[in-house]
Amino acid sequence: MAEFVGNLLVAQSGGPTAAINASIAGVIQEAGKHECIEEIYGGLNGILGILNEELCDLNDEKARSIEGLRYTPAAALGTCRYKIDFKKKPEKAAQDMDRLFEVFKAHNIRYFFYAGGNDSQDTSHKIHEEAVKRAYELRVIGVPKTIDNDLPFTDSCPGYGSVIKYCATTVMEVGIDVSSMATDDGSCCIIEVMGRSAGWIAAGTILAKRTPDLPPHIILLPEVPFEEDKFLAKVKETVDRLKYCIVVVGEGIKNAKGEEIGADKSVLDSFGHPLLAGAAERLKEIVQGRLKTKTRTVLLGYAQRAAAHFASLTDTTNGFACGEAAVKAAIEGKSGFMVKIVRENDNGKIKWSTGLQPLAEVANVEHFIPKEWIDHENFLMRQEFIDYAKPLVEGEVKAPMEGGLPRYVALEKSRVDKVLPARA
Amino acid sequence: MAEFVGNLLVAQSGGPTAAINASIAGVIQEAGKHECIEEIYGGLNGILGILNEELCDLNDEKARSIEGLRYTPAAALGTCRYKIDFKKKPEKAAQDMDRLFEVFKAHNIRYFFYAGGNDSQDTSHKIHEEAVKRAYELRVIGVPKTIDNDLPFTDSCPGYGSVIKYCATTVMEVGIDVSSMATDDGSCCIIEVMGRSAGWIAAGTILAKRTPDLPPHIILLPEVPFEEDKFLAKVKETVDRLKYCIVVVGEGIKNAKGEEIGADKSVLDSFGHPLLAGAAERLKEIVQGRLKTKTRTVLLGYAQRAAAHFASLTDTTNGFACGEAAVKAAIEGKSGFMVKIVRENDNGKIKWSTGLQPLAEVANVEHFIPKEWIDHENFLMRQEFIDYAKPLVEGEVKAPMEGGLPRYVALEKSRVDKVLPARA
Repeated sequence: MAEFVGNLLVAQSGGPTAAINASIAGVIQEAGKHECIEEIYGGLNGILGILNEELCDLNDEKARSIEGLRYTPAAALGTCRYKIDFKKKPEKAAQDMDRLFEVFKAHNIRYFFYAGGNDSQDTSHKIHEEAVKRAYELRVIGVPKTIDNDLPFTDSCPGYGSVIKYCATTVMEVGIDVSSMATDDGSCCIIEVMGRSAGWIAAGTILAKRTPDLPPHIILLPEVPFEEDKFLAKVKETVDRLKYCIVVVGEGIKNAKGEEIGADKSVLDSFGHPLLAGAAERLKEIVQGRLKTKTRTVLLGYAQRAAAHFASLTDTTNGFACGEAAVKAAIEGKSGFMVKIVRENDNGKIKWSTGLQPLAEVANVEHFIPKEWIDHENFLMRQEFIDYAKPLVEGEVKAPMEGGLPRYVALEKSRVDKVLPARA
Repeated sequence: MAEFVGNLLVAQSGGPTAAINASIAGVIQEAGKHECIEEIYGGLNGILGILNEELCDLNDEKARSIEGLRYTPAAALGTCRYKIDFKKKPEKAAQDMDRLFEVFKAHNIRYFFYAGGNDSQDTSHKIHEEAVKRAYELRVIGVPKTIDNDLPFTDSCPGYGSVIKYCATTVMEVGIDVSSMATDDGSCCIIEVMGRSAGWIAAGTILAKRTPDLPPHIILLPEVPFEEDKFLAKVKETVDRLKYCIVVVGEGIKNAKGEEIGADKSVLDSFGHPLLAGAAERLKEIVQGRLKTKTRTVLLGYAQRAAAHFASLTDTTNGFACGEAAVKAAIEGKSGFMVKIVRENDNGKIKWSTGLQPLAEVANVEHFIPKEWIDHENFLMRQEFIDYAKPLVEGEVKAPMEGGLPRYVALEKSRVDKVLPARA
């Protein structure tokens, strides 16, 4: 297929991660190799910024800054949770789509790359379909990104390896701390990690468990209905035996009725999901109230997905490769695909590569932990899960240090002149 | 003064840190150089274990494990919060003291080193006084340790440099994350750190602020009465200007009446202090309730003091030096002192050494942040504080890695045979 000559636009969407900037670096550095790509633009704050014609010129950035994106957390171009929602707001969505293509035309955008999770892949898919419908020459490739690891078809999602490396290390460290204080009274510590509907992050902390008595002692996944009595029996058994118990809980755990045990359902985010907090606090009340065991909580919150100081080199390397692969695919004439990570196990040595999956198959499909990887009986993960997760945390990213703290980069984001009237 | 020939006992007390094991490594490695020290014992779980004659033989440990203590978090010998309280429980305290000296005699303990904070230095002081009173030949040296950094006379306390290196990095990373999501609606993130009465840890996060607009935007110290309106005005001003605001709060902040804003005062720890939780949650309610600004919290809890994966090399090196210096002082005939860290500023180049301070002057004195280092007006720290804190976070401790996670050591703790009847 003939190359399109024109400009490239890349943007980021959804919750930031420690690896999403590595993907952007991959896009930019690969794009620089292709003459048919004239300007390299970034959309500020995802689709929202593009709708407002807020673009920046990435060729204006220092090469050092682009390279620094490989180890800099969060979304360097800014991100958003804005969704073009054809189902609930078809009129608004149609307007948005018209506006997007006005912006694309005004800036001769012929390559569009969007890094994000489920919602973002859905957006990329719709833009690809619209381009075809409008006969506008545009290559659209989705770049996977989510700490939640819930995109289908890809081996894993950039961001996931880093978040579990950090969370598993935290579980290990908190475990040593709590065990060193353990007295006959016993104590419990509950560590809450992200994960609204899929428990991939909570599950990943199993990597801290190098021997059977080490933490985590209990992993509570959002996909497994919470059984209070069974949980308390396991806490009690663990505290009686080891004098302490470390529990890891995914924020979205639900009771048998499907209600999130720590949710304040009156507050919704812009995608219409309830904003959660407090699963760990709720469990603490239960443990202290019923077992009288001293209980503390750790709520890692945003710290976990931004912890680039201890990111997984495998993760950021795969993230970078996804960005590169997206550009290569587009140059080869592909559009309407998501890049996926492919793992090949060569006698225990893992080889990573990338592939492509049609966005039509990806969009809005949520990938859950295979049921047979969950050890329900023991609140733990089976060996299959460990074999899956372990290679993802290998290797350490070395960010440069300045005065004992990391030196991350910030982009200049010099603006591209607006040529359109302001968005209605 | 003549050397005492006999055995050494070292123990750890109070909350664990990322540097307290480095001090124990310093004690053990230095002790190995002196022939007058015959056996090197560890007391398990501090004074509590010693009272129960729970000792382990540290000469039985692998040299590799002792070296590994330099980078292993928490208290490898176990710790406790047990206090010999002559004021509130004089009878029990006298019994405990008798028992301690029975254990010392039974195992020919002539050198006793106790690593801990204020309460532990007080315990060391009392043991020293008792030894003198009983004419029992014993050299007692306190080893400083506390993330709270509130021991007097010492430049800083081992554990502090590491906790602020981790917390400042977390503030930096969460700041980049939140700012990358910032939209016109604005958002706020409140990061709660430890610090019951002194705000040294919260203050230390100022190191993340490399330029005036970077976080932390607001630091709330326990020693500064919380003024809700002034705080909210600063949050609003920051969100209006930058679209986001990062607040760091020491867990023990109090209102004008001196009541902790996040305390559940009905639960007390064994020292009689209220067990705190929830300053960040309380502030979130206030910000969301009054400003309607979307607010999230991060509660680092035990993770902050155990974060050896990102410990400060300056901190663990100083911790190790304190352990060495304790043994050297005892060998030289000193008893009843705490080792202190001494800083010499040679034209901007910091030189670290150790000194000794009489325990009588140290015990139960709390060292607060100098008032003139606090920028009350702006909820920030002044340059004097930054100049003080910056050298403490320099350098990174490199723990060996295994499968992408740190490989910390655990001691064998082979028990010394008990020779006494069980404690009454």
